[in-house]
Amino acid sequence: MRPVSRLSELPEIVISLNKRFKVAVVMAEDKNTIEAVIAGILNGFLKPIFIGNKQLIISLIPDELLLNENAFDIVECEDPKEASDLAVDMVNNGEADILMKGLINTDIFLKSVLNKEKGLMKEEGVLSYVCALELPAYHKLLFITDPAVLPFPSKKQKIAMAQYAIDMTNKLGINEPKVALIGASEKVSEHFPNSLDYQEMKEMAAQGGFGKCIMDGPLDVFLACDPESLKTKKIISPIEGDADVLLFPSLEASNPFYKGLMLFGNGDLAGLIQGTTHPVVVMSRSESFKSKYYCLALACLMSN
Amino acid sequence: MRPVSRLSELPEIVISLNKRFKVAVVMAEDKNTIEAVIAGILNGFLKPIFIGNKQLIISLIPDELLLNENAFDIVECEDPKEASDLAVDMVNNGEADILMKGLINTDIFLKSVLNKEKGLMKEEGVLSYVCALELPAYHKLLFITDPAVLPFPSKKQKIAMAQYAIDMTNKLGINEPKVALIGASEKVSEHFPNSLDYQEMKEMAAQGGFGKCIMDGPLDVFLACDPESLKTKKIISPIEGDADVLLFPSLEASNPFYKGLMLFGNGDLAGLIQGTTHPVVVMSRSESFKSKYYCLALACLMSN
Repeated sequence: MRPVSRLSELPEIVISLNKRFKVAVVMAEDKNTIEAVIAGILNGFLKPIFIGNKQLIISLIPDELLLNENAFDIVECEDPKEASDLAVDMVNNGEADILMKGLINTDIFLKSVLNKEKGLMKEEGVLSYVCALELPAYHKLLFITDPAVLPFPSKKQKIAMAQYAIDMTNKLGINEPKVALIGASEKVSEHFPNSLDYQEMKEMAAQGGFGKCIMDGPLDVFLACDPESLKTKKIISPIEGDADVLLFPSLEASNPFYKGLMLFGNGDLAGLIQGTTHPVVVMSRSESFKSKYYCLALACLMSN
Repeated sequence: MRPVSRLSELPEIVISLNKRFKVAVVMAEDKNTIEAVIAGILNGFLKPIFIGNKQLIISLIPDELLLNENAFDIVECEDPKEASDLAVDMVNNGEADILMKGLINTDIFLKSVLNKEKGLMKEEGVLSYVCALELPAYHKLLFITDPAVLPFPSKKQKIAMAQYAIDMTNKLGINEPKVALIGASEKVSEHFPNSLDYQEMKEMAAQGGFGKCIMDGPLDVFLACDPESLKTKKIISPIEGDADVLLFPSLEASNPFYKGLMLFGNGDLAGLIQGTTHPVVVMSRSESFKSKYYCLALACLMSN
């Protein structure tokens, strides 16, 4: 598989699989959510099970699609917690491949995912998030972790974050991802406890602990993504300013980074919850239609 | 004064002042540093005192400028610490208006600045940094603090950072700056101790503690800089998605933010050390010539 370098390739690849992925949508009566799912139906790669208020859901589906009985299912359920538990059950018993959040409070939704007996977490799984950021000014996708879930990840959590990001790049044809552990500079210092964790992670990577990857850090964003900056500062890094993955030390660091680039760098993104046995889609209302559509295509690829 | 909205206005304004600012350059024998200073000489607003290895310094000055005896002074001094102390003395006794770092280790340079008896710190001054970021995709300058000095600022340090940024915007004609206190979301939560500090800072601002300004937070970057995001999320903020200043909770957050936008958002910047009685210019080797030139113009404006 050729490495995916643009988000628009994601739906193309999924379409080429000639398979319809079943996505269970919790409280689907949300225009933003349903529009992205419908695009997946029309392109032949999604068969959704819409759970929620049936009447409202139907009102959001175009007439021509309503005529096609085989295109989707609707399950009436007006209680968010019940809807959420039901959707998780469907994924666990194989009725659905992917779980997706609709018009429901994220905490209630995640509670069902995190449920110890009936939830969707992997054994020893760490709830986290990886997104693929597409920037016109970078020559390939930049995978960011964790821009959405873990406030101040511990070393154990950062190790999990790195592994999830590596797994995602592998699924997208990047066989030896370059993982930059991001700090404010390249210096290891007690003033930045994360830089000490990074040293251990690098050693772990060198011993093959993350599978095939090139890991380096701490690196600042210039050193991670710009070969010229390495030359100017006379620094040698095995990543060579060509990072695939940026691992951030905190949510306070990752979140402004990607939001700044969405606003001012003309960025686009697709991301998924991590640590689960099956892909879980949680999209922000402020995300564009395109982002949501790419996100669903990414979920299908990860499920395949 | 009309608010400055682009960095290129900085030298224009300084030139219009018809004044030559005296800048003491420590270990000036650095091509990058001297080039930016020479542009300031040629545009008539700088009269530097180059301190360092005289022969090396002369080798970096164009011949036509060497003929003009009135254009600059050179003081021979080969010891970095001595050169640094000397330059600080010059600023303190009025021989220089601005201090600038050349080819010298930043720690040695800052030690002279921070010296309790003979340094350049304001009483109760907090060593910090503010930079003005110019982004083609934003309609005005975005002031960032602190992208360079304080790793994890305390509440007291964040209060100082806010004040320094406000003072800088005032000097650039922005009379009521909009200051966004940046977090990963708009929620105040114990999981993000900075958000608790932000609440106190907002109250302080409401009571006039920072002078004339509009302060709000925690806000994420979307809510701080994009009116549409406020509408989508149905959130009301007095900043109205039109921030002048972004105050970050840590260096790990601010540093990747501005570096990402320099690389992928076609950004440019000018910044200064804060907490000092006189402007102090510390520029990174990786900064462009333009950034360095704007930086010097900003120092002149702040000194005026």
